[in-house]
Amino acid sequence: MILLNDDFIKREKTSINLEDRGFQFGDGVYEVIRYYDKKTFKMEEHLERLQRSAKNIRLQLPYSIEKIKNNLEKLMKESDIKSGNIYMQITRGVAARIHPFPKKAQPTLVAYVTPFKRPLDNMENGVKAHLTEDIRWNRCDIKSLNLLANVLAKQEAVDNESFESILHRNGIVTEGSSTNIFITKNNVIHTHPANNFILNGITRLEVIKLAKENNIEVKEETFTVEDLLKADEVFLTSTTSEVTPIIQVDDIIISDGIPGPITKKLIDLFEQLINAD
Amino acid sequence: MILLNDDFIKREKTSINLEDRGFQFGDGVYEVIRYYDKKTFKMEEHLERLQRSAKNIRLQLPYSIEKIKNNLEKLMKESDIKSGNIYMQITRGVAARIHPFPKKAQPTLVAYVTPFKRPLDNMENGVKAHLTEDIRWNRCDIKSLNLLANVLAKQEAVDNESFESILHRNGIVTEGSSTNIFITKNNVIHTHPANNFILNGITRLEVIKLAKENNIEVKEETFTVEDLLKADEVFLTSTTSEVTPIIQVDDIIISDGIPGPITKKLIDLFEQLINAD
Repeated sequence: MILLNDDFIKREKTSINLEDRGFQFGDGVYEVIRYYDKKTFKMEEHLERLQRSAKNIRLQLPYSIEKIKNNLEKLMKESDIKSGNIYMQITRGVAARIHPFPKKAQPTLVAYVTPFKRPLDNMENGVKAHLTEDIRWNRCDIKSLNLLANVLAKQEAVDNESFESILHRNGIVTEGSSTNIFITKNNVIHTHPANNFILNGITRLEVIKLAKENNIEVKEETFTVEDLLKADEVFLTSTTSEVTPIIQVDDIIISDGIPGPITKKLIDLFEQLINAD
Repeated sequence: MILLNDDFIKREKTSINLEDRGFQFGDGVYEVIRYYDKKTFKMEEHLERLQRSAKNIRLQLPYSIEKIKNNLEKLMKESDIKSGNIYMQITRGVAARIHPFPKKAQPTLVAYVTPFKRPLDNMENGVKAHLTEDIRWNRCDIKSLNLLANVLAKQEAVDNESFESILHRNGIVTEGSSTNIFITKNNVIHTHPANNFILNGITRLEVIKLAKENNIEVKEETFTVEDLLKADEVFLTSTTSEVTPIIQVDDIIISDGIPGPITKKLIDLFEQLINAD
């Protein structure tokens, strides 16, 4: 079942107009919301970010957040999938192709659920990452559909037998192609501040909160590629990857190639949060 | 009539899959090709650039360039529209939404023609432009579907009662939101070099060639916002705007508010080229 605007329709009956601004300009925003055992995780936070993203590209949401929330909940509840992701995107709608905002177009909302298992193997054993240049635009804080740079970076990770690409801009580590990156040094966690150069992940925010509540110091300050490679521990966070240790960056082994104690502690705390929520 | 992949089908019968990577990632490239009186203008050059764009995002074109060319010519010839634009985009195709390239997806090609009149008024009287920051990614040389920054810049132009936004990156003028920008100073033309910070327009290339053939010096070197505002003449080029004088940038009047002699000369030369082609 697909949520198309305000209607629940069958997958095979949905179709997108070729002049949808999502298809021609990537002119839209999106969210991926995790649900465990038919319970959404941090839905409110995702919908708040959706509103910020939409505001930043000057897109008026077609429905109230309450209505969107109810429709997404319904989509999830009526699905056969017990644990998975809700994917939702909203574009500026259908209009003859010219760059300026169309005057009359109605935004297009598309949402559906997909099955997704917790990446327990990755979380236990850690993953390899690949370092590459951050070539994205200057508004990475907007969760927009302009994802080509992210796609190219992720493919580069795959080509390098890695789970994720870690991006750096002028020697500063920003984030992963679809994750946030953290390092630890001398028991202090470092992660790029939430400005225009990163997407402020919901999991990022929860992990920072969990760390602080458990007396682990967190510095939201930039760090360099050199800091990354000399870190005690490295991990990534995202809605689908939760907290995943990084044990190798290209040829450099991190924390002896095994997940470190702070990372493991945060994995546990995050798991408790999921179960408690 | 729409060219969808290899088929000519009716507009109302076309539909795009919601999991097309164009719709979810902007994962594709495009071209806009002008035709005058049922004759395409610089088709070969556009198709060469298409190949470069596709190669740069590692997208394998679904058909030979010869076949694409023949289909576009057919699309144009069978249309009722005597003079217009051929719009074509190619995306990485339909696949379940994950960032890396799908292994089996077949690219989606969409093309259609739209009527378009030469902007004779703008060319004769000049247009107003608006200055704004260039926030795009670092591969502006790729004609990709990730156009949100361009859309936002163009809308800013509209909001400022301007025809186009002129973009600057750290004080250096790069190009317009969908055009190339030129200035003249002491009878020398200056325009940003064709590197990763601009889209190397087909009209840009033709205008540079025309200028040189007519003994007007052209420097493909960066220039600053200050140079722009103190220029003798400013003009823009694009497939649809041809050569259009800029007579005002925000509150600053350029060349006494009338198109200058070099700009007018190039407009004439470009017109001759269209007629000769």
